[in-house]
Amino acid sequence: MASDLVYLNGKILPRSEALVPVEDRGFVFGDGVYEVLRVVQGRFFAADFHNERLKRSLAGIRIEIPANYAPEKLNEIAAELLRANSQLDGEATVYMQVTRGVATRAHAFPSPAVAPTVYISTAAFKPMTRLQEDGTLAVTHPDLRWARCDYKTINLLPNILASQYAAEQGATEAILIRDDEITEGAKTNVFGVLDGALRTHPCNSHILPGITRSVVETLASGLNVAIDHTPIKKSDIPKLQELFISGTTTDVMPVVALDGKPVGDGKPGPITRRLQKILNESIYSSAPLGD
Amino acid sequence: MASDLVYLNGKILPRSEALVPVEDRGFVFGDGVYEVLRVVQGRFFAADFHNERLKRSLAGIRIEIPANYAPEKLNEIAAELLRANSQLDGEATVYMQVTRGVATRAHAFPSPAVAPTVYISTAAFKPMTRLQEDGTLAVTHPDLRWARCDYKTINLLPNILASQYAAEQGATEAILIRDDEITEGAKTNVFGVLDGALRTHPCNSHILPGITRSVVETLASGLNVAIDHTPIKKSDIPKLQELFISGTTTDVMPVVALDGKPVGDGKPGPITRRLQKILNESIYSSAPLGD
Repeated sequence: MASDLVYLNGKILPRSEALVPVEDRGFVFGDGVYEVLRVVQGRFFAADFHNERLKRSLAGIRIEIPANYAPEKLNEIAAELLRANSQLDGEATVYMQVTRGVATRAHAFPSPAVAPTVYISTAAFKPMTRLQEDGTLAVTHPDLRWARCDYKTINLLPNILASQYAAEQGATEAILIRDDEITEGAKTNVFGVLDGALRTHPCNSHILPGITRSVVETLASGLNVAIDHTPIKKSDIPKLQELFISGTTTDVMPVVALDGKPVGDGKPGPITRRLQKILNESIYSSAPLGD
Repeated sequence: MASDLVYLNGKILPRSEALVPVEDRGFVFGDGVYEVLRVVQGRFFAADFHNERLKRSLAGIRIEIPANYAPEKLNEIAAELLRANSQLDGEATVYMQVTRGVATRAHAFPSPAVAPTVYISTAAFKPMTRLQEDGTLAVTHPDLRWARCDYKTINLLPNILASQYAAEQGATEAILIRDDEITEGAKTNVFGVLDGALRTHPCNSHILPGITRSVVETLASGLNVAIDHTPIKKSDIPKLQELFISGTTTDVMPVVALDGKPVGDGKPGPITRRLQKILNESIYSSAPLGD
């Protein structure tokens, strides 16, 4: 994808020419936040939620963004970029990153403040249809992350190490365990079905408030599926009837085996299937198909 | 300092021309490690310790570095850079950073592996003599960091937020508290004197194994000062007789007030002073002064 176009600090330019100074605080500190959005036929899915979360992440690490870079403006830039990359047809993803900017390396914020660095890229996207149909494999991994997982920052080393471990085990996702409880996945949120209720970790500083997580909860209550925010304990795992992961590019994906042991009867379960179906309807119906 | 020279991936070039691709994993993930070394008259202080720690950090996050970028080779490059920047006289610091390299953004490691990105910069350095003489102020802050603080990675957001908080309080350092115990500072290790013994957090995954920390411990045992690795509890703080922070650019710096309350009698204490003196001798005597 070396020839596609990206956006960097006011310019649309070839990816190969998109360069940042070594003193960008993203490069030396991971001092930034990001969002990934799903686009169907040029229409952004749940953009308001992503924009709100981006604002919350920026506020969380105290990056002040000028009005011309408000998340809604970044969406407009992203739309322009999708057009420039001929990705308004079919499916795509948008990656938006904001760092605190470029300054001589020192931990405390630059004073006076410098302009934030804004980077946006887009990619053609294909849903993981086969894994969504058949279900996938996951592994557990210790949750090594910091205490503010509710901010979507680019300090992603623990997620990387867990994802790499999963890949080496032939699994799609690492499900993270903190204090003997499932928090979420390295890149997704995690839901289980236990005694007929949908169980997922409560929204606190130990998980990212996932957009798809939130949509799934809304859809589940529409289906009269009970939601219980008691975290799934490690000791609950053998009793799980169903297990799935959710995310912007993952949708609802059944997990049919965890750490090599089948979940429930080892097939995608009925609640997972129902949620998967209505989530897909929600994603695709919000797009002006055939436009 | 826009006109000085830095090293990036095989080249020495002006800092203003040192640019990395937006897809560098340092920029999108904070996926890298670093070291800061102290240089006196062209001589690297405790280089072997820094090199060993860099190897340990690289192994910890599983970055494989080719032989031409072994830490010892990076020291040679740094020496060349110091020469190019006319920083072989007097004092300087060297910053060395290695990231996993450039690849299309995906959490798991690039496969096949890509060449790591190597960035080295140098700066003229002045010790903080006045703060070392008079002592300084510190504040406590919750330790929000991940579970592998023993790797010196560029995932530094929690350190940044704590450092910024300290700066806003007029303090030099934020002293981090995890589970009601002092772990270390946002940029330094922390030592206290309690009942005549030197107390500091044990080396485990909750602190960085500081080079100066290790040198100070060696020097302390030479002075027959007892060292106790029982962490200092929050409730111990009012009883502290002395408190100091240590680091590569901090040396031994007395903390005379914490959270606005005097430590001991509010002046640098005798054990701190003795350690400060012999650390300075150690740093400066290892340099071929007048060369």
